[in-house]
Amino acid sequence: MSSRKSPVVVMKFGGTSVGDVTRVKHVADIVMAHRRERPDVAVVVVLSAMAGETNKLVALAKSCVDEPSGREMDVLLASGEQVTVALLAMRLSALGFPAKSLLGAQAKISTSGQHTNAMIEEVETDSIEAVLAEGGVPVIAGFQGVTEGGDITTLGRGGSDITAVAVAAALRAEACLIYTDVRGVYSADPRICRGARLLDRVAHEEMLEMASLGAKVLHTRSVFFAMRYGVPLAVLSTFGGSFVPGVNGTWIVNEDELMEKPVVTGVTHRLDEARLMIQSMPSDISTMARLFSLLGERDILVDMISQETVSPGLVNVSLTVADDQSSVALDIARSSVPELGAGGVSVERNIAKVSVVGLGMRRHTDVAGRTFRALEKHGIDLQMVNTSEIKISVLVARKHCEAAVRALNDEFAPEVSECFDALA
Amino acid sequence: MSSRKSPVVVMKFGGTSVGDVTRVKHVADIVMAHRRERPDVAVVVVLSAMAGETNKLVALAKSCVDEPSGREMDVLLASGEQVTVALLAMRLSALGFPAKSLLGAQAKISTSGQHTNAMIEEVETDSIEAVLAEGGVPVIAGFQGVTEGGDITTLGRGGSDITAVAVAAALRAEACLIYTDVRGVYSADPRICRGARLLDRVAHEEMLEMASLGAKVLHTRSVFFAMRYGVPLAVLSTFGGSFVPGVNGTWIVNEDELMEKPVVTGVTHRLDEARLMIQSMPSDISTMARLFSLLGERDILVDMISQETVSPGLVNVSLTVADDQSSVALDIARSSVPELGAGGVSVERNIAKVSVVGLGMRRHTDVAGRTFRALEKHGIDLQMVNTSEIKISVLVARKHCEAAVRALNDEFAPEVSECFDALA
Repeated sequence: MSSRKSPVVVMKFGGTSVGDVTRVKHVADIVMAHRRERPDVAVVVVLSAMAGETNKLVALAKSCVDEPSGREMDVLLASGEQVTVALLAMRLSALGFPAKSLLGAQAKISTSGQHTNAMIEEVETDSIEAVLAEGGVPVIAGFQGVTEGGDITTLGRGGSDITAVAVAAALRAEACLIYTDVRGVYSADPRICRGARLLDRVAHEEMLEMASLGAKVLHTRSVFFAMRYGVPLAVLSTFGGSFVPGVNGTWIVNEDELMEKPVVTGVTHRLDEARLMIQSMPSDISTMARLFSLLGERDILVDMISQETVSPGLVNVSLTVADDQSSVALDIARSSVPELGAGGVSVERNIAKVSVVGLGMRRHTDVAGRTFRALEKHGIDLQMVNTSEIKISVLVARKHCEAAVRALNDEFAPEVSECFDALA
Repeated sequence: MSSRKSPVVVMKFGGTSVGDVTRVKHVADIVMAHRRERPDVAVVVVLSAMAGETNKLVALAKSCVDEPSGREMDVLLASGEQVTVALLAMRLSALGFPAKSLLGAQAKISTSGQHTNAMIEEVETDSIEAVLAEGGVPVIAGFQGVTEGGDITTLGRGGSDITAVAVAAALRAEACLIYTDVRGVYSADPRICRGARLLDRVAHEEMLEMASLGAKVLHTRSVFFAMRYGVPLAVLSTFGGSFVPGVNGTWIVNEDELMEKPVVTGVTHRLDEARLMIQSMPSDISTMARLFSLLGERDILVDMISQETVSPGLVNVSLTVADDQSSVALDIARSSVPELGAGGVSVERNIAKVSVVGLGMRRHTDVAGRTFRALEKHGIDLQMVNTSEIKISVLVARKHCEAAVRALNDEFAPEVSECFDALA
């Protein structure tokens, strides 16, 4: 552990924030402003590759080999952040703020050996602390680490966020600020819901539900990590001025740090699922089990499930899967029709899943009732329903998605504390 | 030192050879063919970045900062080879030839700390040997290394060739093959001299003279390195089929390995020099010394020098400098005219330096006379002459460059042993 006494803040900038040289310069200005305003607080920066670069490298690999080896894929992908950290470090130094880039291995970010999807096991902070001790800004390549054997690894989706949270945890940072291209976490997607409010705080558990239900602002893995290690985490926009929660920025906090717990904190939606229907299947549990075994063997992840009885001993089973798995799932179900003794199979892709999420649901009754009535009032039919302790998800026709989000945001909005409306 | 018993060959491919995915695949085919033809010989590959990539990264840095820090420039530049080694290693593995990429630090290429122009100090071969011991092909990123403190460095111009030679020396390789976009070393530039012959062998000393006199096939630093460490070095074309010296390939050898020593091995030319003339300068040695001190202070490298007496105590001094230094040199000379007591200064850029190089000159007389007569026969005037033990350089008008090269190639061609004419 370090002997450093001064507080430290970790600032992480995503691919859009460092998408070209002009933006890298802007990021340098943000870091510089922070250093000037709070000279007693040390800054550690974590960067992603330029937006689009990772996809470009993946395409390059695929044009070279059908199935690239994971080890070499990681060497290839890790070159992306190498470019951005070098550019930002040279820019900061030129502005008079000494900075040093640190690649994953140099920052001693040790990971497991699962290439392209490695787990951080440890961050030894001595090389980061050495830069801080010189008064410099460590600029760390996110998304990448190194195995015990010295092989380069990458962390998979949301990897740079995870790097930032892990570094913040190891340094006992006072905050981990995730700079992105949105101002934070909204009560609903502001692109489709004019009444969406920017939240100043959201609980980890809510954020986890919202992320998995379609809010793209943070990857669930980094939220888990922050929750487990008690890292104060915030999301804000690189292009939205200073960090002011509720204006530009949302804190992701422990439940006990919330002053009040709204019944519904946010409304999310996702359009990337498909609904698979198996008609007139025998209702016995062994047939049902067989169906899910077949899907599981092919790594099909099933989200929502429902069944309705059509005649004695026969049910229609509906389930949702990721859109990009739906063709495989359909093939499996179709070829199993004889074995399962089912009547037929169909798929519906014009659907949307809309969810309300809030810790307050635990202590409020009739949230489901209010949800259904609000949708009914707008003539929106429900195809499926799924609930957990702090969320209710409904499946609706895709054409009704926006109306459903607005209806639910309006329904529950009055009950949350007055928030700044970022779009007003 | 290694306990490996089997022989090893180092194959280095330049930026043009790995310029796109199609070419990377072609390189994989060359390596594969070598492994199949000589399964008892291990192969180690060294790669450059894709052609143009380094320039692109330099431009990126310059658009970010006027004067990028050397440390960060190296981090940035090193990303170039990272891409090519990953692609080739995944390609070879997919073809059934297990391969592992090794970055400079992973291959333990230790260098000095002079960023962007570091010197290799040591190659610890254990990680390379570990890949070889598994029967794999190590694919090493050229041009890059690491300091004792763990900082990434790059080796400057010709850096990947130097990596290849250093690795070959450390492994005591039976050969270091430099694959490039020409078939080897020609007696003259085949683009302007139809009678140019591809040489099957050339001595290190000749190659060094030829490289510094305009033959671009190998950088002098790698030739020096090969000579000092006794590395058997060859140059050949990636696109010219198998390695057959004199057909596709030239060995760069020690003088004592040459069966015969032609009077003239090659004719080279360069167009990137300018001639500076200081008229009517006092001929005393202190004025001359002062002139060269002024140029030296500004790092102007002077190549050829001549003086002719114009009247008692007054001389015209001519000197050649690199074209891109000629404006600065002219400014220096012009502003020194009063101090030097000279009559005036002028510059001539329409010049060419044509040189004949050959170890045989040491034992043959009248090479200069034959050179001058051959040029005279074609009506070509000499502006300046410069000689060393194994070369004669003449400065001619640029418009006479091609004719001079052809005349000298023809003049000395009959005396070298019969060679395959690659262009016939």
